[in-house]
Amino acid sequence: MTGIKTQGEKRLVVISGRSHPELAKKVAEELATSLLPVDARTFASGEIYTRMEESVRGCDAFVIQSYSGPVNEWLIEQLIMIDTLKRASAKRITAVVPYYPYSRQDKKSRGRDPISARLVADLFKTAGADRIISVDLHAAQIQGFFDGPLDQLFAMPVLVEHIQRTVDPANLIVVSPDMGRVRVADIWSDTLDVPLAIIHKRRDPAVPNQVTVHEIVGDVKGKMCLLVDDMIDTGGTIVKGAEALKANGATGVIVAATHAIFSDPAVERLASPAIDRVIVTDTLPLPPEKLFDKLEVLSMAPIIAQAIHEVFEDGSVTSMFNGAA
Amino acid sequence: MTGIKTQGEKRLVVISGRSHPELAKKVAEELATSLLPVDARTFASGEIYTRMEESVRGCDAFVIQSYSGPVNEWLIEQLIMIDTLKRASAKRITAVVPYYPYSRQDKKSRGRDPISARLVADLFKTAGADRIISVDLHAAQIQGFFDGPLDQLFAMPVLVEHIQRTVDPANLIVVSPDMGRVRVADIWSDTLDVPLAIIHKRRDPAVPNQVTVHEIVGDVKGKMCLLVDDMIDTGGTIVKGAEALKANGATGVIVAATHAIFSDPAVERLASPAIDRVIVTDTLPLPPEKLFDKLEVLSMAPIIAQAIHEVFEDGSVTSMFNGAA
Amino acid sequence: MTGIKTQGEKRLVVISGRSHPELAKKVAEELATSLLPVDARTFASGEIYTRMEESVRGCDAFVIQSYSGPVNEWLIEQLIMIDTLKRASAKRITAVVPYYPYSRQDKKSRGRDPISARLVADLFKTAGADRIISVDLHAAQIQGFFDGPLDQLFAMPVLVEHIQRTVDPANLIVVSPDMGRVRVADIWSDTLDVPLAIIHKRRDPAVPNQVTVHEIVGDVKGKMCLLVDDMIDTGGTIVKGAEALKANGATGVIVAATHAIFSDPAVERLASPAIDRVIVTDTLPLPPEKLFDKLEVLSMAPIIAQAIHEVFEDGSVTSMFNGAA
Amino acid sequence: MTGIKTQGEKRLVVISGRSHPELAKKVAEELATSLLPVDARTFASGEIYTRMEESVRGCDAFVIQSYSGPVNEWLIEQLIMIDTLKRASAKRITAVVPYYPYSRQDKKSRGRDPISARLVADLFKTAGADRIISVDLHAAQIQGFFDGPLDQLFAMPVLVEHIQRTVDPANLIVVSPDMGRVRVADIWSDTLDVPLAIIHKRRDPAVPNQVTVHEIVGDVKGKMCLLVDDMIDTGGTIVKGAEALKANGATGVIVAATHAIFSDPAVERLASPAIDRVIVTDTLPLPPEKLFDKLEVLSMAPIIAQAIHEVFEDGSVTSMFNGAA
Amino acid sequence: MTGIKTQGEKRLVVISGRSHPELAKKVAEELATSLLPVDARTFASGEIYTRMEESVRGCDAFVIQSYSGPVNEWLIEQLIMIDTLKRASAKRITAVVPYYPYSRQDKKSRGRDPISARLVADLFKTAGADRIISVDLHAAQIQGFFDGPLDQLFAMPVLVEHIQRTVDPANLIVVSPDMGRVRVADIWSDTLDVPLAIIHKRRDPAVPNQVTVHEIVGDVKGKMCLLVDDMIDTGGTIVKGAEALKANGATGVIVAATHAIFSDPAVERLASPAIDRVIVTDTLPLPPEKLFDKLEVLSMAPIIAQAIHEVFEDGSVTSMFNGAA
Amino acid sequence: MTGIKTQGEKRLVVISGRSHPELAKKVAEELATSLLPVDARTFASGEIYTRMEESVRGCDAFVIQSYSGPVNEWLIEQLIMIDTLKRASAKRITAVVPYYPYSRQDKKSRGRDPISARLVADLFKTAGADRIISVDLHAAQIQGFFDGPLDQLFAMPVLVEHIQRTVDPANLIVVSPDMGRVRVADIWSDTLDVPLAIIHKRRDPAVPNQVTVHEIVGDVKGKMCLLVDDMIDTGGTIVKGAEALKANGATGVIVAATHAIFSDPAVERLASPAIDRVIVTDTLPLPPEKLFDKLEVLSMAPIIAQAIHEVFEDGSVTSMFNGAA
Repeated sequence: MTGIKTQGEKRLVVISGRSHPELAKKVAEELATSLLPVDARTFASGEIYTRMEESVRGCDAFVIQSYSGPVNEWLIEQLIMIDTLKRASAKRITAVVPYYPYSRQDKKSRGRDPISARLVADLFKTAGADRIISVDLHAAQIQGFFDGPLDQLFAMPVLVEHIQRTVDPANLIVVSPDMGRVRVADIWSDTLDVPLAIIHKRRDPAVPNQVTVHEIVGDVKGKMCLLVDDMIDTGGTIVKGAEALKANGATGVIVAATHAIFSDPAVERLASPAIDRVIVTDTLPLPPEKLFDKLEVLSMAPIIAQAIHEVFEDGSVTSMFNGAA
Repeated sequence: MTGIKTQGEKRLVVISGRSHPELAKKVAEELATSLLPVDARTFASGEIYTRMEESVRGCDAFVIQSYSGPVNEWLIEQLIMIDTLKRASAKRITAVVPYYPYSRQDKKSRGRDPISARLVADLFKTAGADRIISVDLHAAQIQGFFDGPLDQLFAMPVLVEHIQRTVDPANLIVVSPDMGRVRVADIWSDTLDVPLAIIHKRRDPAVPNQVTVHEIVGDVKGKMCLLVDDMIDTGGTIVKGAEALKANGATGVIVAATHAIFSDPAVERLASPAIDRVIVTDTLPLPPEKLFDKLEVLSMAPIIAQAIHEVFEDGSVTSMFNGAA
Repeated sequence: MTGIKTQGEKRLVVISGRSHPELAKKVAEELATSLLPVDARTFASGEIYTRMEESVRGCDAFVIQSYSGPVNEWLIEQLIMIDTLKRASAKRITAVVPYYPYSRQDKKSRGRDPISARLVADLFKTAGADRIISVDLHAAQIQGFFDGPLDQLFAMPVLVEHIQRTVDPANLIVVSPDMGRVRVADIWSDTLDVPLAIIHKRRDPAVPNQVTVHEIVGDVKGKMCLLVDDMIDTGGTIVKGAEALKANGATGVIVAATHAIFSDPAVERLASPAIDRVIVTDTLPLPPEKLFDKLEVLSMAPIIAQAIHEVFEDGSVTSMFNGAA
Repeated sequence: MTGIKTQGEKRLVVISGRSHPELAKKVAEELATSLLPVDARTFASGEIYTRMEESVRGCDAFVIQSYSGPVNEWLIEQLIMIDTLKRASAKRITAVVPYYPYSRQDKKSRGRDPISARLVADLFKTAGADRIISVDLHAAQIQGFFDGPLDQLFAMPVLVEHIQRTVDPANLIVVSPDMGRVRVADIWSDTLDVPLAIIHKRRDPAVPNQVTVHEIVGDVKGKMCLLVDDMIDTGGTIVKGAEALKANGATGVIVAATHAIFSDPAVERLASPAIDRVIVTDTLPLPPEKLFDKLEVLSMAPIIAQAIHEVFEDGSVTSMFNGAA
Repeated sequence: MTGIKTQGEKRLVVISGRSHPELAKKVAEELATSLLPVDARTFASGEIYTRMEESVRGCDAFVIQSYSGPVNEWLIEQLIMIDTLKRASAKRITAVVPYYPYSRQDKKSRGRDPISARLVADLFKTAGADRIISVDLHAAQIQGFFDGPLDQLFAMPVLVEHIQRTVDPANLIVVSPDMGRVRVADIWSDTLDVPLAIIHKRRDPAVPNQVTVHEIVGDVKGKMCLLVDDMIDTGGTIVKGAEALKANGATGVIVAATHAIFSDPAVERLASPAIDRVIVTDTLPLPPEKLFDKLEVLSMAPIIAQAIHEVFEDGSVTSMFNGAA
Repeated sequence: MTGIKTQGEKRLVVISGRSHPELAKKVAEELATSLLPVDARTFASGEIYTRMEESVRGCDAFVIQSYSGPVNEWLIEQLIMIDTLKRASAKRITAVVPYYPYSRQDKKSRGRDPISARLVADLFKTAGADRIISVDLHAAQIQGFFDGPLDQLFAMPVLVEHIQRTVDPANLIVVSPDMGRVRVADIWSDTLDVPLAIIHKRRDPAVPNQVTVHEIVGDVKGKMCLLVDDMIDTGGTIVKGAEALKANGATGVIVAATHAIFSDPAVERLASPAIDRVIVTDTLPLPPEKLFDKLEVLSMAPIIAQAIHEVFEDGSVTSMFNGAA
């Protein structure tokens, strides 16, 4: 046959946006490689520029960006990086977004609302992303917003392992901070094999004007409460919940969440004596001013690295989580 | 200027699939028009054929199909109708799906699951649908599966009005059949200004192998329970819930749901003495064998017709529901 | 260079829909592999669910579905399977449709007709199919309906080999059942090196109201007639044709067709004494009630398997048919 | 409501490519308007440039191009015109192609063939065409190549009316030039209520090496033969057919065809004494050197103009042809 | 005919992003309407939310956003607004970007550069924009980046009129700040009917290491120089040029530019005594800290408003600029 | 795991259109392979047909076409070839267009202009091209017209090497033929380390009606002028420029350009005694009638071949040009 034949070869590269280089570096280290050198800058005019400083032709490229702080800056940066890779002939581009931006704008709550989580999926697609890797989506339906494979990873194995190592299960109870999170709390309760309680926010019929009562469903008296959530943003719900638990006789409150957004005034609120420990992961950057004594940060880098490895090697991400992903 | 100028004019037509012609007819009547004549047939080979028997050039076409029974037949039929309209030069095509098919397959629960609700949205788009109108989506995120406007209508105004007319509010309590439905039940409780209870399904720690206990959160003793859900499929959850309510002292159980799928053995199950009344809407066809004494069916035709009118006349669907749609 | 390099590898998997598992199994056997385990179910509500029970990441997946019986069920099932594979990161997805559904709706015969064969191609594309493999398309133009490669296979080599083995060519004549099929019959006549006759259906000028006369063009007296067609649906045309051949002195009639749709009342009609043998392939499932004494079924599995092999190995499908495909 | 409201208005404009301005002018005249002034030029480098010399913002634009002579030049010109209109904010763009270019490349006859007729449809779509109007497609399936409405017009009413006015039906017989055209000839035979004959080309078994015999199916002796086809390209088939008819005793041969491509050496061939009259339409330009004595050219401009009018006014094209379009 | 017919009507609405509400308000006033009320907010997490507070169903919506300051914030905001409008059933959406963001990233200057100006065009398209209106694009080719109509407006008529009113033409000379801008300066020179000079930046051969000499091509001695550019970002080029002009004997330097980006340290630099007057437009917001004594700001609101009016009324934008747009 | 695994392999094939087979052959030779056999023909009707005469399944196909002479013929031919390859299952298709057609129609110079260079990019995409390779684009922004990788190659290394070998640098000066080309001339001046002059075309104020004066910016007296441009079309600008250089005392004029379009009357004009040497490349075919004594043609085949090799082997095209591509 006419032409030239050779063996195929494939190359994995990891690229980091500027939002959370520590995480990206750890991921690259876990993979026993280093980050592709990138020139990424913001001009005085506010416009961002990125350039790959090494050939990426034919690569399987993973672009990692985390979404706290100036999320719109980071989003445009990641889109420009993806565009750069596409035009530089990368073979396949995966947007790695440990925390999926705009995930709470996943539906029209009222008429004439945006569905920004879908828009974000479309923007990634348009820029040139072939797939997405994310951790603990706020709503699982976001998987359906992307027209292509979206591999969802879970922080629970990491969090559970840490808790099992550091907490006596005898007295433990899992608590869901509101009705919307019961399903997830249920899985925790199953996995840890401890009971479940729920905080039910309801308006106080005795007091007018939206005064909310935090009712506890289940008995937390004398228990160590493990309050679990997917994210902590400004911390309002979590702190109110912890206070209610203590008021109902809980001996301690441990908060466990995947995404530490910690928008103001989260750090201040979490200082509340109602909370004893706060356990989060490093899906989002935690600068020194967001760190505090009772905060424990676990790394998702090993799990993200393994997922990238499975994707690159045509292995199985599903098998990492016993079929759940 | 060269050319010919005339005043624009627009024409609305309503077209019915074969799954639920009664509803479509009612909708057309509410709009003071009649259904466009269509030749729709299934050949011996199983293939469907549809032809519009009147010109639809330049029309604003609304194609109504309901999804119970052989849903895949009806889906292909609606897609073929939309294709027919597109090729026959309809100006705008709206798929009216009072019950959105495959709405429960809205996410990957496990790895290698389909997301069929997104697939359905894409199929409608591909066939030529410009927009979708649906009622009470199983998950609001399905709005984000369609790349275009999706107007969600609500059955609650119709159901609430009927209940307020027929039930004494003094003793009433709204009950959510499980944790996943609490948000909706909350809105009911607000609207009717009555208390809320929740059924919590949990495994019985005393008995091995997946025996489930239905725990009631909230006091239903001596209360008339209004068990609300978006759909009744085989009826298992609803009947188990009703029995638990009665076992906990409820004086009566009224079930209210939008979509009466009534798959086998729903009719048989709903005959349970634990249930006193079943109130549903006509978003899905109810053939004689699915009707029973304590069943009350309210029509969504006026609301669907009004929505079509608002869409056609560039009015507001949102205003029909106080901003919610 | 930064990053990780490895040798590429590729993996072929064969997946079967539920319409015709026997054929899919044979294809897998021919390829010396087995079918990928799949969980495919229809719920009480009529909705279908499919899940791949093994990783398909990076695979070259071939999804086989045949289209007789409830074709719309099978079509939605195949689309859901393709969606499942796409979201589970299969690398390339081929829809194998031995009989292309809706192939007779390939044009607008009248205004406001659908072109369902094009719609089907678009649905496959939308769900995620990269290519299609089919056998003996009703109209070759259907290749142009798909925006990508469509490999058409031919049953003629299999049928011709069987006929040459079982029929004396001395007295044989190929017959086209109507004007629309003459081109195909011409190729048969060439290949077998025997003469050609044509059945021309025309209205009887002597009798009003659509009575049709079957005129034979060519001399069939004392001949063994080989009536060839691409498919047998309800069998009407074929049986009328066979009767006309016998009435014109044919000594025998052998019917050869690729696709045995056999919709009611095909089996009953083909029992006609005018027909001596019926030779078809197994592109469509033939349950026991569709089998009868004079029916001979040849398997297309070896040819389909070889085509899959050529596609997987970047070989040549065209060369399987001397340049015709 | 905020904003400004006005009555909508719409404007039709007709634009002509440079291939066949006479036809476009006639169409505009039939519509009682004139062609939009356009600057269309070919530079010394061979590149084409077109500019609309009047505003087309918001217009319903119909761009007419005919396809004989340098078809690729005309195709690129029409695509550039459509691009120009799209970027100049025309509201809707219709490609009017009285003869659809590349219509004979409608399938892969062999492996590794192009399907250029589908490519052409995609090129129109890409440039910005919303719909296509064409006359007598070579294969009706080409309708399915375009992802949008394609209105097929028919020349038969014009041709039939002319023939009925100029030929005595008593002795007339319709003849199909080959097997592939029998269906169309059948409709002619029905419409004129005269018998049908068919020319069957077969290899002469007595003479080796592809010598073809033109067998006549049906009795043409003493008959005036009306040989009907969709197009005359180089005229080979038609002239051979006419000679065979005369050789079989036909008293006269009238050729009727829609598209007069008349590629070399068509004019020379059609001069054959075997042909008495040639009736065609003006879908393609006929420069003086392609005109000859026995040629009669009928205009399709009234039918094209009416179709444009129906499309513009949301009327019915189907009704122009008794439901056939 | 079946169905309901009414007269069409259309409605224009103007919507403002939060970057430059003053300009949007002026545009609305020029159109004699007011801005559509919008709820636009940035949450503590950095995510933006927008909601239309009035129905926009069927509207012709113009969304105005200017791009200086946090351009990525404004870009995501405008995309979310467009998404909101699309899902709220606006009929047509125009992104009005008086200054096109990322317009200087219009090509790959080196390998592995992004082409962000194209990416931006694709993002607008993806979000749902049907067309773009912009003023004085940095490169005219950006028109070709958008797959749809892009109406480019010009500030020159406004700037020229002001200069003619305030400067004595006798002594005036137009100066291009570098080689890349000569074409535009040429048009100015023509329009004002005054001579042209050019500043040519070249490396100083006498001094090593990138010392640049600003050579003046043309005689500026004793002349009032009008230095024209499309934008002033940090002001470096302009100030160096002005100093060179003064050094070469110019009696005065007037700077005229469309887009006043004024990134740091532009304001400081423009204070240079080499510059006598700075004339810009209000395409970008100028907060108090960016205003200074010799700055004159002309409004583009009337021209933008007229363009919107022409687009809405199917008039001509081209005619606003004598055929140039 | 179920299925079949094998090592991947990849195959490069080079395919030539009919416009410039000499170049394609040289490219194939440089790659040490030969051109894939193709059957490409133009029928009497003007339609083109192409067929690949060997399997291309799974190939990395490079289709080379040059654009002078009948450019629209060649464009359609290349599109048909790409369609053929796509449908014949080529894995990746690269359109190699040494001279990008319609590159001068890269923007709307006036309202209602086409942007044909963008249209061409879209046509390539639609036909099935995954990437484009071109040489010295007329405007670098054309890279942004294609939605995918476009590798731009440069002729400068080839031209510079030749000039350095054949011209004494002592007396050399680089000249830009007009203001629009100064940037490119600047790079030449840098690379050769010689001074730069510019020809400035301006209207003669002394003579009315568009008489143009060619003013020389920079001192060319006694210098050997190297007049550089990207293309020579009809040669008007170049010859006028050369004459002006000689009139200003230049001792010689060497013209160097990448693309030798040489439309009439270029050859005649370039015969002018004002020009001493003309150096071009073979990106476009130069038939004998376009050759003349002082013309020197350098081959781009080695550079194109190397680029194809880098693309095929996932190497780096950027590194071929020190980061510029």
